[in-house]
Amino acid sequence: MIQLNETHDVNLKSWVASANSEACDFPIQNLPFAIFRRAGSNETYRGGVAIGDQVIDLAKVASLKLLSGDAAVAAEAASDTTLNRLMGLGNQFASALRLALSKGLREGADRALEAAFVPMSEVEYELPAHIGDYTDFYTSVFHATSVGKLFRPDNPLLPNYKWVPIGYHGRSSSIGVSGQTFRRPLGQTKAPDAAEPSLGPCKRLDYELELGIYVGKGNAMGDRIPLDAADDHVFGFCLFNDWSARDIQAWEYQPLGPFLAKNFASTVSPWIVTLEAMAPYRISWTRDEADPQPLAYLESAANRAQGAFDIKLEVLIQTEQMRRNNQPAQSVSFSNFSHSYWTVAQMVAHHTVNGCNLKPGDFFGSGTQSGPEHKEAGSLLELSNGGKEPVDLGNGETRTFLNDGDTVIMRGFCAKEGAARIGFGEVSSTILPADC
Amino acid sequence: MIQLNETHDVNLKSWVASANSEACDFPIQNLPFAIFRRAGSNETYRGGVAIGDQVIDLAKVASLKLLSGDAAVAAEAASDTTLNRLMGLGNQFASALRLALSKGLREGADRALEAAFVPMSEVEYELPAHIGDYTDFYTSVFHATSVGKLFRPDNPLLPNYKWVPIGYHGRSSSIGVSGQTFRRPLGQTKAPDAAEPSLGPCKRLDYELELGIYVGKGNAMGDRIPLDAADDHVFGFCLFNDWSARDIQAWEYQPLGPFLAKNFASTVSPWIVTLEAMAPYRISWTRDEADPQPLAYLESAANRAQGAFDIKLEVLIQTEQMRRNNQPAQSVSFSNFSHSYWTVAQMVAHHTVNGCNLKPGDFFGSGTQSGPEHKEAGSLLELSNGGKEPVDLGNGETRTFLNDGDTVIMRGFCAKEGAARIGFGEVSSTILPADC
Repeated sequence: MIQLNETHDVNLKSWVASANSEACDFPIQNLPFAIFRRAGSNETYRGGVAIGDQVIDLAKVASLKLLSGDAAVAAEAASDTTLNRLMGLGNQFASALRLALSKGLREGADRALEAAFVPMSEVEYELPAHIGDYTDFYTSVFHATSVGKLFRPDNPLLPNYKWVPIGYHGRSSSIGVSGQTFRRPLGQTKAPDAAEPSLGPCKRLDYELELGIYVGKGNAMGDRIPLDAADDHVFGFCLFNDWSARDIQAWEYQPLGPFLAKNFASTVSPWIVTLEAMAPYRISWTRDEADPQPLAYLESAANRAQGAFDIKLEVLIQTEQMRRNNQPAQSVSFSNFSHSYWTVAQMVAHHTVNGCNLKPGDFFGSGTQSGPEHKEAGSLLELSNGGKEPVDLGNGETRTFLNDGDTVIMRGFCAKEGAARIGFGEVSSTILPADC
Repeated sequence: MIQLNETHDVNLKSWVASANSEACDFPIQNLPFAIFRRAGSNETYRGGVAIGDQVIDLAKVASLKLLSGDAAVAAEAASDTTLNRLMGLGNQFASALRLALSKGLREGADRALEAAFVPMSEVEYELPAHIGDYTDFYTSVFHATSVGKLFRPDNPLLPNYKWVPIGYHGRSSSIGVSGQTFRRPLGQTKAPDAAEPSLGPCKRLDYELELGIYVGKGNAMGDRIPLDAADDHVFGFCLFNDWSARDIQAWEYQPLGPFLAKNFASTVSPWIVTLEAMAPYRISWTRDEADPQPLAYLESAANRAQGAFDIKLEVLIQTEQMRRNNQPAQSVSFSNFSHSYWTVAQMVAHHTVNGCNLKPGDFFGSGTQSGPEHKEAGSLLELSNGGKEPVDLGNGETRTFLNDGDTVIMRGFCAKEGAARIGFGEVSSTILPADC
């Protein structure tokens, strides 16, 4: 069983005052990792940890020799331009760093770390890891069923779904960090009543609300990662918008899966919340008795007891008109990662059951995290019922799919009685007009 | 139109005698690139060029300052442990290096380059590039139709096939170089008459005969590569065995495509034949008049005139019994890349039409290159008609799918009157028993 340790203590307060606010995503119990530099500078990107409204510069921590032991090794590894080396060390190193930072940031500690602070309002981010391979899973049975109904009315949920944690390979090169902008993609589409396809700008541009998962320690080719060892290979989580061109997808995806409908842009949030920080929000994972129970390699008592995570997720849209009128972004969906049909550990065990080698910094998308209720759908495709029912944005505007100039924002956090809020920050990205 | 230059002259002979044999894959007109070191050494891997039975060590060429100008820049870039930097320079640099090496290797030239020779029999290879992203295409209509019949008897060739150069994302981490061995993968499979799936070793392990294509100069995200500019972004070709677990594939692949059926191993040949070396073997590309003609972004006079390549391909199997009895590998299939329904330039133009960014060293598989005749099928799935008709190996053994201990060898070359033979060497890989 995962044990909570002193870093999770809800009563811990920091001498960084902004970290003690109840609404703060980055209290002393969180301490997520990113790659950053001062905005607009030519500084080298390096690793940082968030505390309140500050970023702790890990390269500075290392060069000032503020830490010792495994924590110092971790800070030195995180001084690189990506977090891959830290990820590859194994979670005990990030954990040692987390504990050392927790101790150094507590009320009463000396303020040595302050020498490594950069105000969060003054930084810009890069991708936190070099993503060698990106795998997109499909773990929401609610999303699979409702999208299946739209793409295959006669056959919405395929027979393999409840046995296989369905996944497919995505493209790494087009993954960008929050703030990514991209042009509306062109592609081949064919209306059902058209004789021939044609090339043109995507007419059904959509977001997908996903959790992102970074691999930590890898496995050698040919080695399987057993379900109960999976946690040792997961570095942490982020928010992930897996942009999708629905009309391109509908025409291209058979028989080998989505391709150009997905690889024009995919956006991650900058901060990676470690698996350790998530410990208080592990919850039991269950499978409906009426459903098939998992095959042995996807089944364990530990996975049943605490394989799932209670992570609240939200999608907001801010249109050009809202920006012009200084209106805030409008919530369009609330969901929760607890609805996932498969756990992260099951994803890892399944991905490697054939001997496939994972590398530090590899990335999984969870698949669109739609919940059981219609309003919990993680894409406009579902919310608008395939484009038939416009979604009200509350300011007189509606959307079936996204318009040029729309900004999509995703937020996520964990909160409950008796534990500190663990926030993910946000991922935000804006659509530019097609270049025709 | 692609012009031949002095490096293509069929009458050129080299002072490296082994390069002048008619059967040699690596005459002076070829000069392919690889990453190598002395076998069994701790030397750093670096770039090399093949000439006859020798490898020209490009790091040595650079350190000895044997070349000047763009050729020297190229040799220096190719001194890295991967060819990515050379690829990213753009093809004019590899072309300058090719011309300089051609001049230095000709009969009558001084033998300065000999100081950089390593006998090919004494080297081992690594992947020639860091492959950021790997895309597998599906460009043989014969393969698509015959496999389609087996997976979807009622619907073999889907309506998009003749419009869209179908491709999907593959996994980079499990790509290895010739000599790769791998354990038979485990996976979920479900027999049609079974009530439930089960986990076990793959029973239908297969090869796929593909051409591999390395991207040279990349494109920025959002920029399209027009069809007639595609050649500037293709560094060269190799042989590619895209191992496939057919029983795992059949159960997992809907709706998002193959995943664990493909990512346990994929094997490339070590030598990359440059696009320039292939120039004499460009041929016209045609589309049956009865078939849809390409949309405008996939159509050009140049692509019609010389978009295709005449590359002869062969698959051989050597079983454990053959090795024990000192029998040579047995040919099971001959095909040709000229059968491809789409050209490499069309793959590039399609891949980027949505703004997807390609990076130097990215890799495309052509898809299994089955020809129109049954004996030209590029997989056992096709040759054995879905496992129903065993393939005779000529020594009393037969195969429907591959056994443990089987070595699969692929060879390729171009040859015709009036041009030098341009060989690819081979890719060879052996199946180890499953680890259960």
